[in-house]
Amino acid sequence: MSNIREVAHAAGVSVATVSRALTSPEKVSEESLKKVHDAIQAVGYRPNLLARNFRAAKSFAVVVLVPDITNPFFSQVIQAIEDRAQQKGYAVLLGDTRETSKREQEYVNRVETRLADGVIQLRPQSMSASTQNIPWVNACGCEGTPGPSIRVDNIAATKAIVDYLISLGHERVGIISGLKDNPHTIDRLQGYKESLAAAGLVFEKELVAEGDFTMWSGQNAAKQFFQLTQMPSAICCMNDEMALGAIQTLKARGLRVPEDISVTGFDDINYAKYWDPALTTMAQPAEEIGKLAMDLLLRIIEGEDLSKTQMVLPTEFVIRRSTCPPPHPRS
Amino acid sequence: MSNIREVAHAAGVSVATVSRALTSPEKVSEESLKKVHDAIQAVGYRPNLLARNFRAAKSFAVVVLVPDITNPFFSQVIQAIEDRAQQKGYAVLLGDTRETSKREQEYVNRVETRLADGVIQLRPQSMSASTQNIPWVNACGCEGTPGPSIRVDNIAATKAIVDYLISLGHERVGIISGLKDNPHTIDRLQGYKESLAAAGLVFEKELVAEGDFTMWSGQNAAKQFFQLTQMPSAICCMNDEMALGAIQTLKARGLRVPEDISVTGFDDINYAKYWDPALTTMAQPAEEIGKLAMDLLLRIIEGEDLSKTQMVLPTEFVIRRSTCPPPHPRS
Repeated sequence: MSNIREVAHAAGVSVATVSRALTSPEKVSEESLKKVHDAIQAVGYRPNLLARNFRAAKSFAVVVLVPDITNPFFSQVIQAIEDRAQQKGYAVLLGDTRETSKREQEYVNRVETRLADGVIQLRPQSMSASTQNIPWVNACGCEGTPGPSIRVDNIAATKAIVDYLISLGHERVGIISGLKDNPHTIDRLQGYKESLAAAGLVFEKELVAEGDFTMWSGQNAAKQFFQLTQMPSAICCMNDEMALGAIQTLKARGLRVPEDISVTGFDDINYAKYWDPALTTMAQPAEEIGKLAMDLLLRIIEGEDLSKTQMVLPTEFVIRRSTCPPPHPRS
Repeated sequence: MSNIREVAHAAGVSVATVSRALTSPEKVSEESLKKVHDAIQAVGYRPNLLARNFRAAKSFAVVVLVPDITNPFFSQVIQAIEDRAQQKGYAVLLGDTRETSKREQEYVNRVETRLADGVIQLRPQSMSASTQNIPWVNACGCEGTPGPSIRVDNIAATKAIVDYLISLGHERVGIISGLKDNPHTIDRLQGYKESLAAAGLVFEKELVAEGDFTMWSGQNAAKQFFQLTQMPSAICCMNDEMALGAIQTLKARGLRVPEDISVTGFDDINYAKYWDPALTTMAQPAEEIGKLAMDLLLRIIEGEDLSKTQMVLPTEFVIRRSTCPPPHPRS
């Protein structure tokens, strides 16, 4: 195996330039980079970057903790994180925690043992106490998530959805929530309550059905509304997947969406616009979230104190076919 | 920061046991592992595993190359790979290649420069020539994919789908394919042709519409069939996402699925059973594929010669609501 001197000689640049091209390519001109790259190919040089990492005490990898990678909103955010990381010379270590804190801790250990330089957390929960001294960013934060975070205003966004349903004439709006203690559930439920209060409507506990952000749970939660003496005329779901599950239940029981009952989602995953009916939902900027989270984490890894940084990104309400005025307006 | 001797002392075990617990936990008894783990917490020890990796010339990470992580079939396979990797003490580096060979090469470089120990490729294509000497496994292989692979029998599975449509009475079966040069496209198209031939039906080029495995492409490809003088009475789609897109087009143009036209998919992603109508499709064992691919790669990393290993896993045909006999049987 050839060495770095041969590469420098073949490229007609200094050894220092070759070294920089390997470790900090952004500091080397496009032209020199190309020379070095061609020379590496020509002489068949394979640097041992484990040695570099050991000397630099850096791994050039970040961990992304995700509760469930099969959720398409999360996979879109991860795609954007990976894209940005790749541009910056970092690798993304996937940590699918399946919502268990044990697995989360195992990934945090990777940072503590230098196998990764930082963590991007896609759960809204704050990290465990032991992680407070490692670089990390919460990419899907909530009101009150401690530490650096990227988030949308979940309260205002949910209030806007329910305001819209009420403006269509709906006075009995059900909600399918995530698990009770999930911070997104808490924020979005508050937005729902604020909207009702602003319209002079009373909050009724029986109109809240609990899911866990999966399609399956949305399908089940929707069944609860059929037990009520009076069904809601609209259902606001805390994410798109639960809305898609709920629509399945409603249609299976002979209701037309939206003519008999309106349904809304949250996220605007790819499937939302292909659904029958196409889903009215609150779009989150998944790509922007991923990109900004990676940029923020890199700055923290480089030593900036951004522990109080909270970036609140705008959402966009997308009105499609799954909502309309209630069948018999009561007001 | 405390050291390994203090951990051994606190745990009441030898330094060698602590070292083994950190590097090969599977070789240490459950009881000793717990003692070491508790002692590590108690004395606040943080081993520098970059140093271990440097000494071992191993990174304990594998790269997963995926053409598009937002495709739910791939995200299910990745979830299973990650699960298995975690059990075995390995990290998964995510390589979303967006189908570009440049990005794929950048990830292969990570193995060549020791930042990863091997590669799991989810594209059916064979790896570039330079990768032939690194440990790798193709997890979504095809007939003829060189090197170690896990795959289903795409030809037989597609033939079974089309056989079923023909058995329902369909004589004019369209197909929405992936890109022409994708090996999955080639295999599945062969299965389609074999089914037609076995039934004495003629292959007609105009019944093949090309997509690229995305919903959007399925939606567009379906439009082509409306240009024909005679529409097909059934459409076999080479994956579920294209089938979901195609159904959207058919319904938007006033056709009922399946009463006017039947549609089938391939994969059985989560959404398939929630669709309206629920999708008839060929289920691939995503979880099993991911698990076996990881196991196979680890054996190759450990030095076994498995370069000719091909594991062919069974598929399962799932008949749901999107298929029925044609409206006016001609036979």
